[in-house]
Amino acid sequence: MAAAIALSRRGRPESAPNPNVGCLIVKDGKVVGRGWTQAGGRPHAEAAALAAAGDAAGGATAYITLEPCAHTSPRGAACSDLLIAAGVARAVIAAQDPDMRTDGKGIAKLQAAGIDVLFNVLPTEARAAMAPWWTRQREGRPFVTLKLATSLDGCIARADGASRWITGERARAHGHLERAQHQAILVGRGTLAADAPKLDVRLPGLGDRSPKKLLLTRGSAPKGWVAVASPEAVGDVDSLLVEGGAGAASAFLAADRVDRLLLYRAPILIGGGRSALGDIGLTDLSAAHGRWRLTDSRRLGSDRLDVYERIRII
Amino acid sequence: MAAAIALSRRGRPESAPNPNVGCLIVKDGKVVGRGWTQAGGRPHAEAAALAAAGDAAGGATAYITLEPCAHTSPRGAACSDLLIAAGVARAVIAAQDPDMRTDGKGIAKLQAAGIDVLFNVLPTEARAAMAPWWTRQREGRPFVTLKLATSLDGCIARADGASRWITGERARAHGHLERAQHQAILVGRGTLAADAPKLDVRLPGLGDRSPKKLLLTRGSAPKGWVAVASPEAVGDVDSLLVEGGAGAASAFLAADRVDRLLLYRAPILIGGGRSALGDIGLTDLSAAHGRWRLTDSRRLGSDRLDVYERIRII
Repeated sequence: MAAAIALSRRGRPESAPNPNVGCLIVKDGKVVGRGWTQAGGRPHAEAAALAAAGDAAGGATAYITLEPCAHTSPRGAACSDLLIAAGVARAVIAAQDPDMRTDGKGIAKLQAAGIDVLFNVLPTEARAAMAPWWTRQREGRPFVTLKLATSLDGCIARADGASRWITGERARAHGHLERAQHQAILVGRGTLAADAPKLDVRLPGLGDRSPKKLLLTRGSAPKGWVAVASPEAVGDVDSLLVEGGAGAASAFLAADRVDRLLLYRAPILIGGGRSALGDIGLTDLSAAHGRWRLTDSRRLGSDRLDVYERIRII
Repeated sequence: MAAAIALSRRGRPESAPNPNVGCLIVKDGKVVGRGWTQAGGRPHAEAAALAAAGDAAGGATAYITLEPCAHTSPRGAACSDLLIAAGVARAVIAAQDPDMRTDGKGIAKLQAAGIDVLFNVLPTEARAAMAPWWTRQREGRPFVTLKLATSLDGCIARADGASRWITGERARAHGHLERAQHQAILVGRGTLAADAPKLDVRLPGLGDRSPKKLLLTRGSAPKGWVAVASPEAVGDVDSLLVEGGAGAASAFLAADRVDRLLLYRAPILIGGGRSALGDIGLTDLSAAHGRWRLTDSRRLGSDRLDVYERIRII
């Protein structure tokens, strides 16, 4: 299942609005088919894996990170039907599909067809791998990553606004890779005015992965940008990267709409510079604790990246 | 030599104003004597190790982290004379003593007595282990560690000044251990007024290690405190821990008197709180780079400690 979850990550973010599922078909201890949800959501992971397996799918075990869909759509057959038709003997499934059109019906169909179903295998890991889709499905809002690039003393710029080259080349390249993994990027009016950021992905081979550009503003947005009036008003987006500045970051934190923090830190001290955040509505220090968990920490050249995730009870 | 350097660290900070030296006597592949500079500077490491070795020192090799002293003082014989008298066959020395009374004379004495001297073995590591003494000897000022305990967004308190319990129990215990390893602690007037900090060492068995208390002020200091008018005016101290607040920290950074940064970070966001630093005289962002190197990074409970050292060309 861990291998199927790793496969599922390849579908992000192009599978949106469909979930990025991963599927492995195993027969006699050998992988005979692998698939993940393709761009735009089709083919589904199961269809891709079954096509790769061909006749070998007969009597095989399918490892799937999300319950196979139960409903036929104009864009293709239901994956539960495809698995039954291919004659798989066993299905191992990580997480149940919260989509009302499936939500248990996929599993029921497989079982009714005599397929042995093992369920709830690594569900936390599978959900984390499709966090953007999961968050939108369950909470009706995008999964939001907030990126902050600061000095050791937490400044994002000098007092006069100078902020070029706080972090080094490797940290910036990592930031571009994060951009490529998001559907949309948001900045505030101040950042647009000060930096006129292109927000494109400047990595070889990933130029076409540049995400939608959103501007947090009560007014209108320039050409090529989509205006968003508030953190709650982000529309048709599964995964959003908030890139700055302090106003936009604070607005998303105050609305408790941040799921993941990317903290890039350069080994410099600025002193009396611009803070990363403004007021985020914290009324008591004790209320600040227990909300964030460090999930990754690494060096990027002379900089350091710490990744924190919001602790939520799902 | 690495073992001798590890021994030398035991002498900090009580050996002051003497250097915290370590010495190992090895004969036929066996350690026959170990010593480090004792409280108040006497006995010296070599004297302690030779006393432990006794007759076994004859024909042995002595590993010493600093060149043995060449001059007799009212408090004891010169270590170079002691080594000669004990009949050691070989001396392996990490770093030359910059003190004018020795500075090469110790080595010359050993060689004149027919002892085989190997020199300049791990000098950087040995100097780092006696950084406080070394800094005062070479630069006439204390080795300064600046401690900052902040939120992820670099705040040391809420806007209203509330700062209790930013970091957790393990980080605070580590801070007390750092106190025990310094000769003096300094805070600014604001911190004294706001927190009335005791600055003592609250660790079992280390209660008597509480350091001298310095107050950064142009005025006078209350009873039990020593007033210090500026970072340049710190007197008879080898190792100084600057504990806050933002004013004191900024003053030491602006004077380029900080050699080591202890950054304790709690997994909380405050937003619009009090910054760790005020103006430190930075005129250009590019000048901020290349000054600090990460030398340690660890978790302390749910907090994180990063240690940075000032890059200086000695």
